[in-house]
Amino acid sequence: MAVNSGIRVSVLGLGAMGSALAGALVKGGYATTVWNRSAGKADDLVAQGAEAAATAGDAVRASQLVIACLLDHASVHEVFDPLSDELAGRTLINVTTTSPEQSREFAAWAAGAGVAYLDGGIMAVPHMIGQPESSILYSGSADVFERYKPLLDLWGTSSYFGEDAGLASLYDLALLAGMYVMFAGFLHGAAMVAPAGVTAGEFAARATPWLTAMTGAFQGLAAVVDGGDYTVGGQQSLEFSHLGDLLAASSDQGIGTEVVAMVQRLIQRQIDAGHGEEGFARIIESIRQPG
Amino acid sequence: MAVNSGIRVSVLGLGAMGSALAGALVKGGYATTVWNRSAGKADDLVAQGAEAAATAGDAVRASQLVIACLLDHASVHEVFDPLSDELAGRTLINVTTTSPEQSREFAAWAAGAGVAYLDGGIMAVPHMIGQPESSILYSGSADVFERYKPLLDLWGTSSYFGEDAGLASLYDLALLAGMYVMFAGFLHGAAMVAPAGVTAGEFAARATPWLTAMTGAFQGLAAVVDGGDYTVGGQQSLEFSHLGDLLAASSDQGIGTEVVAMVQRLIQRQIDAGHGEEGFARIIESIRQPG
Ligand SMILES: NC(=O)c1ccc[n+]([C@@H]2O[C@H](COP(=O)([O-])OP(=O)(O)OC[C@H]3O[C@@H](n4cnc5c(N)ncnc54)[C@H](OP(=O)(O)O)[C@@H]3O)[C@@H](O)[C@H]2O)c1
Ligand SMILES: NC(=O)c1ccc[n+]([C@@H]2O[C@H](COP(=O)([O-])OP(=O)(O)OC[C@H]3O[C@@H](n4cnc5c(N)ncnc54)[C@H](OP(=O)(O)O)[C@@H]3O)[C@@H](O)[C@H]2O)c1
Repeated sequence: MAVNSGIRVSVLGLGAMGSALAGALVKGGYATTVWNRSAGKADDLVAQGAEAAATAGDAVRASQLVIACLLDHASVHEVFDPLSDELAGRTLINVTTTSPEQSREFAAWAAGAGVAYLDGGIMAVPHMIGQPESSILYSGSADVFERYKPLLDLWGTSSYFGEDAGLASLYDLALLAGMYVMFAGFLHGAAMVAPAGVTAGEFAARATPWLTAMTGAFQGLAAVVDGGDYTVGGQQSLEFSHLGDLLAASSDQGIGTEVVAMVQRLIQRQIDAGHGEEGFARIIESIRQPG
Repeated sequence: MAVNSGIRVSVLGLGAMGSALAGALVKGGYATTVWNRSAGKADDLVAQGAEAAATAGDAVRASQLVIACLLDHASVHEVFDPLSDELAGRTLINVTTTSPEQSREFAAWAAGAGVAYLDGGIMAVPHMIGQPESSILYSGSADVFERYKPLLDLWGTSSYFGEDAGLASLYDLALLAGMYVMFAGFLHGAAMVAPAGVTAGEFAARATPWLTAMTGAFQGLAAVVDGGDYTVGGQQSLEFSHLGDLLAASSDQGIGTEVVAMVQRLIQRQIDAGHGEEGFARIIESIRQPG
């Protein structure tokens, strides 16, 4: 096992994700101290070479770099509020999932306590940790990100978004929104073709390359949004995107329409406001100003 | 110009799409007759080597293979109803966009008239015709598809779905549903990050690879749907997929929530029905049986 130049790191929280993160650090040769609220969860990691701390305070005192992977924002405060003196002058990287507002709140707490703070959002499941497909988003202290990037890169692909500690979480949630909505669209399509005897697997074989290709349209939509002029040529108009056929075919197949009706409502509000000739990207205005 | 072994083909309807299709046939060396309801639209094609027919009847009589690219189902009937005698014994490939029910209805009409019939759905815009990214879906007569595949392949990538003439259209609409819903999810994400000063273009640079990677989950979701057992392990549970954080963060950013709320409703109905521990794929049951 390589030893990483005397850097000692403490990981607090050894749930499914915290254990995977700590395991990658041990494997990467970092001197790793681990702590979990309830007993037993450190045993495997200790067998791999980690040291177990008896208390959260011991874990913090053991290392210059402290990593938190707890359940939620409340548990982060519960663990660290009593330890602000011990944390002062150290670095905290918090990869617990929190909202943008919660990340900003905790960054302010850390600043007040004299702690260098980096917030992270993990876009991966535990077994992906260590692979390039595991994407981890960071925001907060650029210094901390730069300094510990080789360590962070042990977990997957690390991206930094900016000094606003809420940004990583905001990106995380925005990307997850895209994912959940895309999954609903895929499952709507699978439900449409099912009554004709098509399996979901057969549909997936088509939908995967099709939607992959269609992600290629995001930059074009984005350019129109950023340009602020929805009348520029070359886009499909809202009138043309009228989803009546899709709704009718869904009903004909005997399935619900609410997935597609959601998009149709966004379109219709823009048409009603007199923008039917403008491009599809304009539906972002229906999202920005809900009806 | 190569001449394609004496095959003569007639194209009826020279709008933006019909012109692109006819142009590809002329370029591909087919002896091509063209017709359009209103005058003038054949001129460019004639300059390239096509022959213009004065009437739809003349166009049908000119070729064994007749291709229709008209506005909609009603216009297809309007053009071909008076020509059933002339069409008898010939082959008709209809790439006009129609609903599955309309495609089936017209296939029955063609069968009654003694016409070999193939229905097509074009998943491309005119300037893409002739490129492999132009995907055209067919269903109806397998014989017609096999026989004319070299010709159809001039337009892009040709796929055949089965004898049910409505299948291509059903797939077309199901894939479009997936696309529109994915676009709405992408634009919701862009709207979420915008108040933090992130441009839609910056968000697209992240969302494109992320959602591309996430299309890799379709086969897994489909396997669960096809297996019919939503309790199988390894899936994210519905309880875990509770989208409250996403809704809250969207509201915090001052934007609407209806895009994400749509998914949340699908999830909630399954949780309310006692399936919260089961996998995310189960939301297809909320789509199949609308609330
Ligand atoms: N698992 C994933 O797929 C995944 C993916 C992306 C992000 N994440 C995020 O990673 C974080 C950890 O997730 P996980 O999967 O490891 O969760 P988990 O398996 O449920 O573990 C939760 C951890 O938090 C600890 N904890 C909870 N409340 C606490 C408190 N009040 N004080 C001290 N410790 C407390 C638990 O300790 P005990 O053992 O004592 O209960 C446990 O170590 C979460 O924010 C999650 O959203 C997870
Ligand atoms: N353009 C695309 O991006 C695209 C993509 C996929 C699928 N499609 C489908 O392809 C088909 C044609 O689209 P397009 O873009 O070529 O439309 P278009 O430019 O509007 O042309 C419509 C064509 O239909 C003809 N037509 C309409 N009503 C008619 C009637 N009652 N009798 C005879 N001819 C009639 C028009 O003739 P006139 O010139 O006399 O009006 C014209 O040739 C549509 O079903 C469309 O959904 C188009």
